[in-house]
Amino acid sequence: MMNNRTKRFLKYMEDEGIKKAVILKKENINYFLGKYFMSFSVLVFEEEPCLYVGKLDKDYAEELFDFLEIREFKSWEGIFKGCDGVEGELPISYLKYIDKDYKIVSEKIKELRMIKDKEEIKLIKKAAEISDKAINYVSNNLEDIKNLNEYELVAEIEYIMKKHGSIKPAFDSIVVSGKKTSFPHALPTKDKIKDILLIDIGAVYNGYCSDITRTFLLKDDEEMRKIYNLVYEAKELAEEHLKEGVSAKEIDNIVRAFFGDYEKLFIHSLGHGVGLEVHEEPRLSNKLKEDIILKEGMVVTIEPGLYLKNRFGVRIEDLYLIKKNGFERLSKAEIPIY
Amino acid sequence: MMNNRTKRFLKYMEDEGIKKAVILKKENINYFLGKYFMSFSVLVFEEEPCLYVGKLDKDYAEELFDFLEIREFKSWEGIFKGCDGVEGELPISYLKYIDKDYKIVSEKIKELRMIKDKEEIKLIKKAAEISDKAINYVSNNLEDIKNLNEYELVAEIEYIMKKHGSIKPAFDSIVVSGKKTSFPHALPTKDKIKDILLIDIGAVYNGYCSDITRTFLLKDDEEMRKIYNLVYEAKELAEEHLKEGVSAKEIDNIVRAFFGDYEKLFIHSLGHGVGLEVHEEPRLSNKLKEDIILKEGMVVTIEPGLYLKNRFGVRIEDLYLIKKNGFERLSKAEIPIY
Repeated sequence: MMNNRTKRFLKYMEDEGIKKAVILKKENINYFLGKYFMSFSVLVFEEEPCLYVGKLDKDYAEELFDFLEIREFKSWEGIFKGCDGVEGELPISYLKYIDKDYKIVSEKIKELRMIKDKEEIKLIKKAAEISDKAINYVSNNLEDIKNLNEYELVAEIEYIMKKHGSIKPAFDSIVVSGKKTSFPHALPTKDKIKDILLIDIGAVYNGYCSDITRTFLLKDDEEMRKIYNLVYEAKELAEEHLKEGVSAKEIDNIVRAFFGDYEKLFIHSLGHGVGLEVHEEPRLSNKLKEDIILKEGMVVTIEPGLYLKNRFGVRIEDLYLIKKNGFERLSKAEIPIY
Repeated sequence: MMNNRTKRFLKYMEDEGIKKAVILKKENINYFLGKYFMSFSVLVFEEEPCLYVGKLDKDYAEELFDFLEIREFKSWEGIFKGCDGVEGELPISYLKYIDKDYKIVSEKIKELRMIKDKEEIKLIKKAAEISDKAINYVSNNLEDIKNLNEYELVAEIEYIMKKHGSIKPAFDSIVVSGKKTSFPHALPTKDKIKDILLIDIGAVYNGYCSDITRTFLLKDDEEMRKIYNLVYEAKELAEEHLKEGVSAKEIDNIVRAFFGDYEKLFIHSLGHGVGLEVHEEPRLSNKLKEDIILKEGMVVTIEPGLYLKNRFGVRIEDLYLIKKNGFERLSKAEIPIY
């Protein structure tokens, strides 16, 4: 049975006069399949969708996807014969197989994927619950954690997520302390945890990601507290404006204005969409070339942060489902108050 | 200071008359950097290499890569201005930024990456040691493991690898039992472990992967033992031929001939290269369009497997460094004897 996502895409193809679209990007394939499948596969839309897999995965794919035709992949020439719809992500080395003019279909898929349906929201909520468990473990064991190094703590965190059903971390977990918190994307090392601890993690549940950040102050430091509370208030301010109809540029600018003199320490954008990818549309950034208006069903992060070079950084991030008159916060782990 | 990998690539550019090459593929960037770096980045080779990163990662990149110029990424137009060398993996949506004829430089990078240097071998060995530890944990705790389900066991396995320095699993760990072993790429479920257990895992150490498979027979079954021993002997046979000078097609065919009537159950190729990617060149397969001759310094898996539909499958896989007169086995976990 064809799902609604597939039906919408086939309707789009019909409207655009596209006869055969070839989908290679894993997350796009998983979107249409409605299941997590990471083995080599190619999804071809003609009148009906058909999934091509390697000989070794055919039996498995048939067991997983009984609603879809499964064929054994033979050659790229066969896949692309008559193809007139491809993704913008198609590697240029495949162009040699394409024998006619083509349209880019991936902008439409991005648009479809931006508004999450009920099934997707359920899976993102589940992923968020899982990463909440790991954050709660940290909150509830802060005294013991001060005796660990970053490697040891990240192992515990990922173990908790895995035990609760996360296929893998949504990205390389950021579990860093001390000066390294001043780098938004630093990776854990053997350094002992001290002074300040920043944890930015995500789970993956049946292909869908979560994303959450908490910062813990491990010593009494007035400046740290001041920066922390600025970030905390910035997130609260963003939440006041977070609902259908707000512009992605505007909400980023509201937070920048609030930071005032500190704005130069806010060196990344306010947030991003989350779904099958941990960074996807819409981006909440004042640097967008084309602005985007938030709509019900979008799932985004809000993650203000301030980074003091060679000293420390603070970021607090939550995950939200946009609603007509506000939002539902999907990540529910407690936020420390200092 | 420029490393040898960079020097070789710049020499290639000079020989080919390429003035500016743009590298986007993460593993290629990490190859030239000699360090694991997953944040957004673009490596541009002109006379000297230059790494472009986002504003938020500039301080971090400067700390990690003091041997390289780091610039803040501003626009794709700037990156691609004058570019005449790109990867075959370049997404077609970037073609609009390219203002002149270009050559594909990624075949050369594949060629360079195929022969591992000392530093790379050290890292792959370390990754292999880490996955060995997880396999040894299973071997030493088989009785207890029979009380776990697949989810629980995969959580333990990944925890052990993470604790020993693996950044992440090299691929979605395959930890399956019973009938699911007949699918080469099945993922773990909540099923209790029973009858037969197949574990195919890899670690990632500073970007470099390992890959190992062991199959454990958990009940006394004559046919399972027979299939297991066929696979075991097939791997020994492949090892007899594994050295510089052997052809990738030939070694796959030798194993196929050995399997005789069972060959139709050997539904994948014999092995593949391993390095910054868990599947890379050279492929050991009789289906290659162009054969490839193994050379000292290549790192490959040998992984014969037989899969009985709806019943069970057996695969045994090790990782090898090719030498002039043989090989060094890099994965050292014991192989069960039945």
